[in-house]
Amino acid sequence: MPLAALAGTTRPDPERILPAMSAPKQNRPKARLPRGFRDRGAAEIMAEQAILATIRRVYESYGFEPLETPAFEYTDALGKFLPDLDRPNEGVFSLKDDDDQWLSLRYDLTAPLARHVAANFQHLAKPFRRYQVGSVWRNEKPGPGRFREFTQFDADTVGSANPAADGELLMMLCDTLEALGLKRGDYIVKINNRKLLDGVLEVAGIPLEDRERRGVVLRAIDKLDRLGVEGVAALLGPGRKDESGDFTRGAGLSPDQAHRVLAFVAPDAKDEQEHLDQIATLIAASKVGAEGLAELEAIVRLLQAAGYGPDQVMFDTGVVRGLDYYTGPVWEGQLTGPVTNDAGEEIVFGSIASGGRYDDLVARFTGQRVPAAGISIGVSRLLAALKDRDAALVPLVVVTAFDKNDAAPGFAMAQELRAAGIRAEAYVGTGKMGDQFKYADRRGAAIAVVEGPDERTKGEVTLKDLALGAELAKSVESRAEWVANREAQKSVKRADLVAAIKDMLGR
Amino acid sequence: MPLAALAGTTRPDPERILPAMSAPKQNRPKARLPRGFRDRGAAEIMAEQAILATIRRVYESYGFEPLETPAFEYTDALGKFLPDLDRPNEGVFSLKDDDDQWLSLRYDLTAPLARHVAANFQHLAKPFRRYQVGSVWRNEKPGPGRFREFTQFDADTVGSANPAADGELLMMLCDTLEALGLKRGDYIVKINNRKLLDGVLEVAGIPLEDRERRGVVLRAIDKLDRLGVEGVAALLGPGRKDESGDFTRGAGLSPDQAHRVLAFVAPDAKDEQEHLDQIATLIAASKVGAEGLAELEAIVRLLQAAGYGPDQVMFDTGVVRGLDYYTGPVWEGQLTGPVTNDAGEEIVFGSIASGGRYDDLVARFTGQRVPAAGISIGVSRLLAALKDRDAALVPLVVVTAFDKNDAAPGFAMAQELRAAGIRAEAYVGTGKMGDQFKYADRRGAAIAVVEGPDERTKGEVTLKDLALGAELAKSVESRAEWVANREAQKSVKRADLVAAIKDMLGR
Repeated sequence: MPLAALAGTTRPDPERILPAMSAPKQNRPKARLPRGFRDRGAAEIMAEQAILATIRRVYESYGFEPLETPAFEYTDALGKFLPDLDRPNEGVFSLKDDDDQWLSLRYDLTAPLARHVAANFQHLAKPFRRYQVGSVWRNEKPGPGRFREFTQFDADTVGSANPAADGELLMMLCDTLEALGLKRGDYIVKINNRKLLDGVLEVAGIPLEDRERRGVVLRAIDKLDRLGVEGVAALLGPGRKDESGDFTRGAGLSPDQAHRVLAFVAPDAKDEQEHLDQIATLIAASKVGAEGLAELEAIVRLLQAAGYGPDQVMFDTGVVRGLDYYTGPVWEGQLTGPVTNDAGEEIVFGSIASGGRYDDLVARFTGQRVPAAGISIGVSRLLAALKDRDAALVPLVVVTAFDKNDAAPGFAMAQELRAAGIRAEAYVGTGKMGDQFKYADRRGAAIAVVEGPDERTKGEVTLKDLALGAELAKSVESRAEWVANREAQKSVKRADLVAAIKDMLGR
Repeated sequence: MPLAALAGTTRPDPERILPAMSAPKQNRPKARLPRGFRDRGAAEIMAEQAILATIRRVYESYGFEPLETPAFEYTDALGKFLPDLDRPNEGVFSLKDDDDQWLSLRYDLTAPLARHVAANFQHLAKPFRRYQVGSVWRNEKPGPGRFREFTQFDADTVGSANPAADGELLMMLCDTLEALGLKRGDYIVKINNRKLLDGVLEVAGIPLEDRERRGVVLRAIDKLDRLGVEGVAALLGPGRKDESGDFTRGAGLSPDQAHRVLAFVAPDAKDEQEHLDQIATLIAASKVGAEGLAELEAIVRLLQAAGYGPDQVMFDTGVVRGLDYYTGPVWEGQLTGPVTNDAGEEIVFGSIASGGRYDDLVARFTGQRVPAAGISIGVSRLLAALKDRDAALVPLVVVTAFDKNDAAPGFAMAQELRAAGIRAEAYVGTGKMGDQFKYADRRGAAIAVVEGPDERTKGEVTLKDLALGAELAKSVESRAEWVANREAQKSVKRADLVAAIKDMLGR
């Protein structure tokens, strides 16, 4: 009869008893969320569930299989975040395990994948294609809309250098966005290749090994939107003085070198073909550049053959984000239309997915270079962008309890309704009828059911149409409640409960 | 064109670059999981997804709404785990935020609920009925099958002292277990009430305030299964010497007191009614005991009226787990049948859900007592118990790539199959045909599709039935591969691809 206490099963053990409730006021903890974290309610969670289910369905139809890794990894396995005793938490949440090893919460889903592949390399069917969805944590300064915990949805193909692997990820992203209800023209997937820029820099005489200068060039290019061609040109050359008079030192390229870089990222070509021709000319002398072009061509050829058009995936040399991290093709999925934010303002949403080819991650562990490519969907941002498209919640029926000491009749009605596929609850509180109607309103219920002594005598129940009631109460200034109540309710035979409610919900 | 770097969207920023892959061997991190954590693969994740979807569906049909709280809470909000500089990680994973406040990962979903309710009390429709599913973390010594991260699924009703709220949770648990495929008799929900034991102890002359002695009594009762009545009697009295000669000090009850306690937990009644009568007699003089009995009766009456029988929910005074934590009724869902574990051994699974009424949690923050009740399902254990019932994975078709430089024909076939609702992937690796068949085998694919030059000339494709092939290869000792290959494959017209595969999968 007594039950063994087993981890993972149940509520806190008796040993975990909280301090007695009678703690004096000054000792009570404050009920507050940690900085940069948040609670999420029904509407958002349900919308996210629907999105995740759609992504899962598409990814699984492609034969990608789910993988889950734990929240924690050994800190050294995560990468650059080697703990030092002064600032073990730089960028990630870290703590020391009781055997003195440092643990960190994952900050993305790629580093754990690399660890998983390195540890299980011999046992995996390769190419290993997995998806993973989950929370990631970043120990950063929180800000408006910037949280320290959020959801990512990744798909990666490990163990193939074939451009078909890249093409597949891009098709899958397009299929997913369209399965989520986006139309062609609502989104665009842009692709680029790090090797092209490498080629341009090489031809311009900047060695690939000069990482520092390459970094300055990348950061300059990334400011094209904000500073325009002239501003970027200054940053590629000697440097730039901003409005406040502050001077940012540039990459120190010669005018000719800067021109080549600008021709790459901010082309003056009249169409894509001319742009590609310009690039081919620009990088003619660079082996790595030619490689990059060939890779992109193979991907585009496959996409075209599979029926994906330039209104879905397009070449764009302006995609530079992560160029230093990825080793070949990079891509970024963007929403093209404006979206209304919480403040009611129209904003351009931009990036909702990104990824590329990274061939070095597993080598960190094994020394062996393993080709890989991936795509990551920012679920929170996608959710915000799709908010306007949310399906309405399934309507709810609240069955009130006239006699709060006899819940059985209400439960019987709720059961019947649920059995008919209707979301229904019997009131389980201890409030009076007025409280119960207020409760039903706050719950956003569509209908409240009442069975008082009068109704029971007559074998009837009263159905209150709460939406209609609210509507009527709004339009009639005086006598509002009375009229609203009268028009928005009706009595039906108890035996007709389910049919009558289906009828009301169907309206 | 350039894209703003935004949190939550995308892969690691360029700034997050990992150390160069050329790191010398001695500097390479080991690819290993932290102690007590694990990776989970496709079969387990998909089975768990199916279970979670079922629980969600039942809970939502009752009108429970989802809530999500973050992984972190302020340590003081979690309860007893007040950080001290020597052992901040006792039981929970804790770390200091950069503003010097202690954060802890949630160890269950109830403490965050209490924080949420206390912080939002005025805005919630009460009773507030929410469900939450998610990972919880315990900083405990890991062991076989004992992990430091696992999934819980909780439902709680906050703000109602009505026994209907308890009854609803129990009905919902029964409905959920049956929706998961368990039959009546496969499971049982046992209920008890802490107030009954309080009454027994009170009548026996042990004051409720004597928490230490009550603790010794509870721990003694919890050992009934292992030690039997005599052993427990010794532990209730002066103490007990075990086989090794070690002496455990007892609760020091008199023989009469111990007899009363034993009569409660290990009744010699011939049926449940007689047991209830014995208890009623035992606690006749105790107000709190009578209260407990009345609460149980109200719950049982409601369950009976709603059609839930004693083969689903039964009274059992042996349910003592958490009696010190809960303040009224407690319940525990158990599987009754044996289950085969990973080692192939039959084990009795026991508890897969538990809960009860706890009225003190919110008061920790506000000083105001708020009645609440909940149920928690241990998803990992339920998953293990239901493993034998797993639906088979959706069958997979692998379309091989005869010419690895031309992936388009294979992608076209995979697309057609997916459009017809068949899970299909085009091979995206760089292996030869033999590697591709091995890959398809390791992926557990049902069918491999081949379109070589011969087939293409004839407008055909070859379909290899991998399951049948494996079967044939098993039964024929010699010539095995040749025969298997011949009998397990056939050629069909390219135009008939989808129909032929549907036909093969349908067999």
